Amino acid sequence: MRIEERLKEIGFSLPEAAKPLAEYIPAKLVGNLVFCSGQGPVKDGKMVFIGRVGKELTMEEGYQAAQICALNCLAAIKTAIGSLDRIDEIVSLRGFVNSDLGFFRQPEVINGASDLMVKVFGEKGKHARCALGTSALPGNIPVELEMVVSIKQN
Amino acid sequence: MRIEERLKEIGFSLPEAAKPLAEYIPAKLVGNLVFCSGQGPVKDGKMVFIGRVGKELTMEEGYQAAQICALNCLAAIKTAIGSLDRIDEIVSLRGFVNSDLGFFRQPEVINGASDLMVKVFGEKGKHARCALGTSALPGNIPVELEMVVSIKQN
Amino acid sequence: MRIEERLKEIGFSLPEAAKPLAEYIPAKLVGNLVFCSGQGPVKDGKMVFIGRVGKELTMEEGYQAAQICALNCLAAIKTAIGSLDRIDEIVSLRGFVNSDLGFFRQPEVINGASDLMVKVFGEKGKHARCALGTSALPGNIPVELEMVVSIKQN
Repeated sequence: MRIEERLKEIGFSLPEAAKPLAEYIPAKLVGNLVFCSGQGPVKDGKMVFIGRVGKELTMEEGYQAAQICALNCLAAIKTAIGSLDRIDEIVSLRGFVNSDLGFFRQPEVINGASDLMVKVFGEKGKHARCALGTSALPGNIPVELEMVVSIKQN
Repeated sequence: MRIEERLKEIGFSLPEAAKPLAEYIPAKLVGNLVFCSGQGPVKDGKMVFIGRVGKELTMEEGYQAAQICALNCLAAIKTAIGSLDRIDEIVSLRGFVNSDLGFFRQPEVINGASDLMVKVFGEKGKHARCALGTSALPGNIPVELEMVVSIKQN
Repeated sequence: MRIEERLKEIGFSLPEAAKPLAEYIPAKLVGNLVFCSGQGPVKDGKMVFIGRVGKELTMEEGYQAAQICALNCLAAIKTAIGSLDRIDEIVSLRGFVNSDLGFFRQPEVINGASDLMVKVFGEKGKHARCALGTSALPGNIPVELEMVVSIKQN
């Protein structure tokens, strides 16, 4: 439980994975890669942030939303592999920011997720990344995040 | 031809893969993964649905569009592996919904694809999934869908 | 340095990879796949094109922007594998086009990237592809491109 302890050390805790509301699963293991379903800033079943960044939400709130999304990605991934300690590396993050027209600072929002991954996993937390804007996300969440990780071979 | 028979049993048939209009291919096999090109709701070379969900199209039409996209993904994947019976699991779906401003029910639209995959492939059809909104898709199609599958090792 | 020579032959040169501005890396190697971070039309640290295609930019400018993005993807991938000659195949491209409302020709924009990959890598440059529109990209760039490649096994 090293990774979960590390999360606590830096002031976070791993949430329960959100139950999918339809015919998909939180994450899928194939070979030594885990692909997780897109995660929003949900905590205890409630949306913590709602709205577009640059309009209803500030960039700092978007950053926090991305952080929560990243925790939810880890929770989703845990459902597929049992323990986060099996993660070898964070391979990639793709973050979609629900953006007001004229808001162009999506990378700074997604830093909320990237910064956290490196705080938790160190050098192995460094990942390929895409930060994108969009005009609409499910339930009007501000950020949706995807993560791919590799697991340790043994 | 079990998978194609299964499709017929539930009232669908596998279309011909759309010919790419440029320098790409319908799907690419690498290792035991197949990545397919983004598919729209096209049938016999014609777009079945055009427009934004929540505006020109209802959610139910969006759902049907996602279903057609999923069939087209399977057709695309078949070009890379010869037979759908080689598919082991549906790894992931990523669906982009051409959304009216204020339309936030993208997951219900993409359920059209997810539901179909589970009807056809059963438990192995359950996948990691992202449902996203956007303001513009090629040709003003309502849904664009990507799929990754794994193939059986032998 | 065959691939870089091939680029020169057809009038291009490989840029330096952009330094990530945050806790991510230009590209990540996992197994025999390389995932690259989303790339924009940046040259020598400056954005070559800014704005939405169909509004501030023409489709032809979008095509050129996609070309530059593709070169930047290759530069990013090189940081992970040392030499582009290690690339076996271009697996997939995903291009997001910052689109004016009512602009639906995203595939023609992303052809800028697809055409280049096939000019450089031949048949092995043919890839699975997604062309998508969006309402906002970082720094108001017109195109953001992702690439996945496979490397030669030895």
